[in-house]
Amino acid sequence: MNNARTDLAQEAREVWQESSSDTTKLRGVIARDDTVNGFPVSRVKITDEEGAAALGKPVGSYTTLELREISRRDIETFPRAISAVADELSKLIPESFGTVLVVGLGNEHITPDAVGTSAISNIIVTRHLVHRLPDVFGRMRPVAAVAPGVLGMTGIESGEIIRGIIRHIKPDFIIVIDALSSMRLERLCRTVQITDTGITPGSGVGNARVAINRETMGLPVIALGVPTVVDIATIIENFAEDVKLPLPDGALSEYSERLLVTPKDIDVHISDMGRILGYAINKVLQNGITIEEMDEFLS
Amino acid sequence: MNNARTDLAQEAREVWQESSSDTTKLRGVIARDDTVNGFPVSRVKITDEEGAAALGKPVGSYTTLELREISRRDIETFPRAISAVADELSKLIPESFGTVLVVGLGNEHITPDAVGTSAISNIIVTRHLVHRLPDVFGRMRPVAAVAPGVLGMTGIESGEIIRGIIRHIKPDFIIVIDALSSMRLERLCRTVQITDTGITPGSGVGNARVAINRETMGLPVIALGVPTVVDIATIIENFAEDVKLPLPDGALSEYSERLLVTPKDIDVHISDMGRILGYAINKVLQNGITIEEMDEFLS
Amino acid sequence: MNNARTDLAQEAREVWQESSSDTTKLRGVIARDDTVNGFPVSRVKITDEEGAAALGKPVGSYTTLELREISRRDIETFPRAISAVADELSKLIPESFGTVLVVGLGNEHITPDAVGTSAISNIIVTRHLVHRLPDVFGRMRPVAAVAPGVLGMTGIESGEIIRGIIRHIKPDFIIVIDALSSMRLERLCRTVQITDTGITPGSGVGNARVAINRETMGLPVIALGVPTVVDIATIIENFAEDVKLPLPDGALSEYSERLLVTPKDIDVHISDMGRILGYAINKVLQNGITIEEMDEFLS
Amino acid sequence: MNNARTDLAQEAREVWQESSSDTTKLRGVIARDDTVNGFPVSRVKITDEEGAAALGKPVGSYTTLELREISRRDIETFPRAISAVADELSKLIPESFGTVLVVGLGNEHITPDAVGTSAISNIIVTRHLVHRLPDVFGRMRPVAAVAPGVLGMTGIESGEIIRGIIRHIKPDFIIVIDALSSMRLERLCRTVQITDTGITPGSGVGNARVAINRETMGLPVIALGVPTVVDIATIIENFAEDVKLPLPDGALSEYSERLLVTPKDIDVHISDMGRILGYAINKVLQNGITIEEMDEFLS
Repeated sequence: MNNARTDLAQEAREVWQESSSDTTKLRGVIARDDTVNGFPVSRVKITDEEGAAALGKPVGSYTTLELREISRRDIETFPRAISAVADELSKLIPESFGTVLVVGLGNEHITPDAVGTSAISNIIVTRHLVHRLPDVFGRMRPVAAVAPGVLGMTGIESGEIIRGIIRHIKPDFIIVIDALSSMRLERLCRTVQITDTGITPGSGVGNARVAINRETMGLPVIALGVPTVVDIATIIENFAEDVKLPLPDGALSEYSERLLVTPKDIDVHISDMGRILGYAINKVLQNGITIEEMDEFLS
Repeated sequence: MNNARTDLAQEAREVWQESSSDTTKLRGVIARDDTVNGFPVSRVKITDEEGAAALGKPVGSYTTLELREISRRDIETFPRAISAVADELSKLIPESFGTVLVVGLGNEHITPDAVGTSAISNIIVTRHLVHRLPDVFGRMRPVAAVAPGVLGMTGIESGEIIRGIIRHIKPDFIIVIDALSSMRLERLCRTVQITDTGITPGSGVGNARVAINRETMGLPVIALGVPTVVDIATIIENFAEDVKLPLPDGALSEYSERLLVTPKDIDVHISDMGRILGYAINKVLQNGITIEEMDEFLS
Repeated sequence: MNNARTDLAQEAREVWQESSSDTTKLRGVIARDDTVNGFPVSRVKITDEEGAAALGKPVGSYTTLELREISRRDIETFPRAISAVADELSKLIPESFGTVLVVGLGNEHITPDAVGTSAISNIIVTRHLVHRLPDVFGRMRPVAAVAPGVLGMTGIESGEIIRGIIRHIKPDFIIVIDALSSMRLERLCRTVQITDTGITPGSGVGNARVAINRETMGLPVIALGVPTVVDIATIIENFAEDVKLPLPDGALSEYSERLLVTPKDIDVHISDMGRILGYAINKVLQNGITIEEMDEFLS
Repeated sequence: MNNARTDLAQEAREVWQESSSDTTKLRGVIARDDTVNGFPVSRVKITDEEGAAALGKPVGSYTTLELREISRRDIETFPRAISAVADELSKLIPESFGTVLVVGLGNEHITPDAVGTSAISNIIVTRHLVHRLPDVFGRMRPVAAVAPGVLGMTGIESGEIIRGIIRHIKPDFIIVIDALSSMRLERLCRTVQITDTGITPGSGVGNARVAINRETMGLPVIALGVPTVVDIATIIENFAEDVKLPLPDGALSEYSERLLVTPKDIDVHISDMGRILGYAINKVLQNGITIEEMDEFLS
């Protein structure tokens, strides 16, 4: 079992279950399936270090929404998906708060890694307006948004840039958006994981080397992630398992290190998910704002 | 054997050989290995319909350059690669010619499909200058360049757009650049195929539905292609073969239809290969132009 | 009087009136002010060659909508502006029609020249879907959309590219979107001119050299234009006139040839107007489609 | 006299001289004309507060290179311009240094404001390589590069973002690149000002509100600026002066606040100057690197 292959706690738990005997109980983990706005939701809570070790993920809560219906492009599905993500996100956010920093991770020049920057372009940025024009914008929350780029382009870890900004603008918490990896093709680009554990190194397409979480940043870090890539070794392993073929350990690691596997219409998915995440964040942060009002602000 | 999995004639021939008994001869195909400017070159000539049927590619000549050394980023490798591509390209181009149209196929919003549009941004466009300022630019060849986009964004087949432009600007021949698919990971983004057979449907990342060749366009079509994606089914099949596992036919076709497999640093590769192809084309079309002069023109 | 300084028939008429004695009547021109959806509308009809000569614009109808309220970003203003543009556009469109080609002119790399390409990115493209999936999309109009780029980048006149595409896809009419020049600062980026006379050379930011109209294209050409630049000579002349200073002819022509004058927040304006024009065109072409449905299609 | 209209110390000095009687001496300012690599260079040194008040610029040294010849696009002009900028820049840089941060200011979505981000895309970023692969890259200087975006998009002042990054990566000095405003059309896009005084509020296209200099950043700030816009009031005032027309104060301030004036081919200028500045910075920071080597690194 290699949990590094998935960034979804839900999948790590599925893998654990498949590899365990029926009678074993996964201690330190509470899981529950649910439905929100008609979408299936899985809630995994890792309650202690035993659970964390078993799933290879930090202690904290992980909510996964399955938004498969958005592929149908019905008129009612997008607003419903935005509300569902907003509802789950709002559970992790304090009742009252001041400035918020939203961070879009990833490389905008590699399509499956661009979900963070795509979401950022859908965020209503208000921090400068609230401060300068309190009469007009005073009832809005001060929100700042940055896309710190990737190490290869800036020479600086994303975490270093974020930490620097935090010191200056002193937000109450940060929301980080990133591309993740999944083990299941059917989850690609149609799933959102929301967690209070931030971003764990080694996730997703790129190669973040430092965690972005409460410990490293000094404040609460809520992460929204969308699986946009699947590890090729996982696909081959699943396939080999189906046909009962034992694979030697590490046989596929070279593939995994070098290759990206992503849907063919990834550009449309990135644009869709960037809008859903951005609008959901706006909805939570700017209390009661409607989709029409966001359209106005952002057009 | 499924030649649809590779756009490289060289690989189709390799597959044929692996699947044939030693004594069989591939009729209708002449192949020869060579070296140009220090790079390995494979030349495959399909001479008749028997050869075409065996390799699943149209009758014509296919030259494949292996430019693996460019990964080392030595100062002398890029100019040497540009010269090698230019030398091979020049063999397919008539001694004397008038206007040339260069076409960059593919979707610039999906990184591995953007090699054509990347090359176009490196083409020295002169048609309007030659016509308007003959005193200054009269010694340059009239070159036009377009990126017709993809069907999903325009609603029009690339071939239809190109045919329309051809009628108006009446080039002597066209050069088309596109992303291809390969069966070998080690060829990804480091190989150039040059052919006089144009573009065959089903190639590469996107889903061209009509051929772009002498027959459909009414004039010679030279195609430059770079394999940027590998069929996932091919990877799994190769793997299964290595471990002597028989796979049922079609077991993997769903994967192939839905997924892209491409290198993790695809953005850098696309930029590198776009520059090499664009500069090689300039070198051939603008007789004797140097890299420094191209830098000036294009900066 | 220099009508080349404005692409708006309404302004050409204002200039004519200012320079004429009260008793003169502008023959060959019918003008009327109106209100549509709460926005001021001016309708100028040039009925014969005498009117055309007086205003320096071709015979045809010109409708100008003043959308100044969109600066306020009220939630109801955008939908109201989209409806107003759609209502005026629909008057120029036949009751029943087949394929339509929408063309976004201009250089996307120069912000004030990018209104055409911005509008194109908001067009619902359906031609390929209607043809391939008639059961699902059969009730939609077949719409194709292209951005032919600019002469300096392609070496080909926009008009040549459009003519070529027309031959292949045989639309019933085309809709062309372009940036225009105005003589009045207060009209910049907040005005839409809709005309059945197509695009006249010398308009706007770039340097179209050939007309794109019924005569050159062989089918009806409806043009939507937004003034995004003002001629600097016009500003200085107006100023000189206010302070009663006679200017020598041509004193300012060098300025006009070399310089662009545009609002400082031009990026926001281009994005706003691109969305309003694109959505208005969708509304007219895809009978009865709502803004929410367009949001789904285009996200 | 309104020095807010120009960001060039050289022009502020010219204005001062024009408005002064012949016998007055400009105290606190030392000026000298020179030639570097065949390009005219003006050196203005503001030595005390009296000079600073007279010119409306902080105490420090200002070098202005006139690179008009690059318009001719001769093959030797670009390398010569890069060397000239590098030579002048190197005079402001200490003999020995550690990490350097290069900052590209401005809004990449407004063409004349994009010279900073254009330069950043030409910077060789090495900080992460030097640290991780000292055997291979140990002889290169550690260079990081960021484009902090604009207040309207992030909600955060550029200066705040830079200050945060400085705290974490602790560079020895920073180099900041920005668009400036000029009073002379002939200087637009063909001039580089290099200064050790950093960036002064109110410069250029956008609206920086805080200075980025040694005082606010806590370390040396070298600024490279290119005038890409001219204040429209200045054009009208110059014109009025030529024709001996007294203008009331402030008559033109509304124009200046709302409008950008920039060359028509601004996209080409931004790309040219971005490359010259980026390559000049590389040349100075990466001791002895050649243009060919930079081409390799950046392609």
